[in-house]
Amino acid sequence: MTTKERIIETAVTLFNEQGTKAVTTNHIAAAMGISPGNLYYHFRNKEEIIRAIYEQMDQEGMDNYQQIIARIPPGSLQAMEETFAMIQRFNWRYRFFKRELTALLLSDPQLQERHVTTHRAMLAVVRHSIENSVAQGILTPMAEEELGLFVEEVWLLTLFWLNYLEVGGEEVNEITLARGNSVVRQAVRCRLTEKGLALMADYLQSSASAVTPR
Amino acid sequence: MTTKERIIETAVTLFNEQGTKAVTTNHIAAAMGISPGNLYYHFRNKEEIIRAIYEQMDQEGMDNYQQIIARIPPGSLQAMEETFAMIQRFNWRYRFFKRELTALLLSDPQLQERHVTTHRAMLAVVRHSIENSVAQGILTPMAEEELGLFVEEVWLLTLFWLNYLEVGGEEVNEITLARGNSVVRQAVRCRLTEKGLALMADYLQSSASAVTPR
Repeated sequence: MTTKERIIETAVTLFNEQGTKAVTTNHIAAAMGISPGNLYYHFRNKEEIIRAIYEQMDQEGMDNYQQIIARIPPGSLQAMEETFAMIQRFNWRYRFFKRELTALLLSDPQLQERHVTTHRAMLAVVRHSIENSVAQGILTPMAEEELGLFVEEVWLLTLFWLNYLEVGGEEVNEITLARGNSVVRQAVRCRLTEKGLALMADYLQSSASAVTPR
Repeated sequence: MTTKERIIETAVTLFNEQGTKAVTTNHIAAAMGISPGNLYYHFRNKEEIIRAIYEQMDQEGMDNYQQIIARIPPGSLQAMEETFAMIQRFNWRYRFFKRELTALLLSDPQLQERHVTTHRAMLAVVRHSIENSVAQGILTPMAEEELGLFVEEVWLLTLFWLNYLEVGGEEVNEITLARGNSVVRQAVRCRLTEKGLALMADYLQSSASAVTPR
C-alpha cells in the first residue's frame, strides 16, 4: 500500500470513529506515524482527502456492481438482492460519508457537483435493472411517470437504510441490514407478476437452504 | 417573543444557512445584537441550544399532527397526504437538523436517546394510521411482519425525502416536495383495495380541482 493509500485508509477509519469535524490532518499523520509534512506532500488539506475518499468509494461501488452483473443478469431478483446487500456493506465501510453526506456536500460545491453525477448514474442503474425485470416479465409494466417514481423509491430506500438505522438508535449488523433488504424486497414484491412471484418464492427458498445466508 | 425564543429562532436561521459547525454562540449573539453574556444566561453552550431546538421541533410536529387528525380521520388518504406535506414543510423549516441528524446524534448521546423516543413515537403514528386504513377497508390486510416492514418503508420515505433532494443536487420547492408525496402515494397505492383505489381517484380529482393545490 502506498503512503497515499494509507492516508486514505487511516482517514476513513478515523472519520468513521469520530466524524470529520473532530479529525484534523495532524491527527491522521500522527495515527500513521508520519510527519504532517509528509501528509501535506500528498494532500494539501482535509477537503482534498475527503474528495479522494469519494473517488475511491465511487470506483469501488461501480467495480462491485460490475462484478455482480458479470455473474448474474441485471433485472433478476438475485441481482437486486445482491446489489442491495453490496451497497449496504459499502455504506458501512464509508459510514462517515453517509452520516455527514448532506453537510459535506453543502460545504464543498466541487464535491456536490461530483456527487450529482454519481447520483444520476445510480438512478440510471436502478432504472435499467427495473426495465430489464419488466422486459423479462418479472415486474408488471409501468407507465413512464410511475416507473420514474418507483426508481426513486427503490433508490431512496437503498441509499438511506443505514442512516435510518442509525437515527433510530439501532445497531448496524447482519440482522438489521437484512431487514432493509426485506423492506426493498416487499416494495418490489407489490409489483411482481405471477411469474415474478414464483421466481421470488424459488429464490427465497434456495437462499434459505444455502449454507451461507445472503 | 422572549429573548430565549429569539435565540432559538436566530440559531435555526443561522444553522440552516451555514450549518452548526460554522456558527458559534458568539455569532448568534452578534446576529441578535445582544451580548454573549446575555446569551449565556439562557444557554451555556451550542449543544444546549441544539437540544432546545429539538424540543421545540418535536412539540411543533406533534401539535401539527394533532391538528390534522382533529379535522380528518387518521387512516384516510387525505390525512396521509396532509401529514406527509406537513412533515416536509417542517423538515424544511428545521433543515439543518435533517442535514446533520446522524452526526449530531452521534456526538450527543443525550440527544440520541431523546431522538429514539420520537422515532419510535413516529413509527407508532404511522402504524396506527395504516391499521386504521386496513380497518376501513382502504388498504389490503397484512400479516404482522409485512405490516412492520411497510410501516418502516413509509416512515423512511417520509423522513429522508428532503435529504434525498439535497444530496441529488435538486432545489427544494413545491414541485420537488410534491414529487416525494407522489412516491409515497404510489407505494401506498400498490396496497389499496378496490374501495381504496376508488377513494384515491376521488381524492386526487377533488384536490386537483381545489383552488389551493395540496
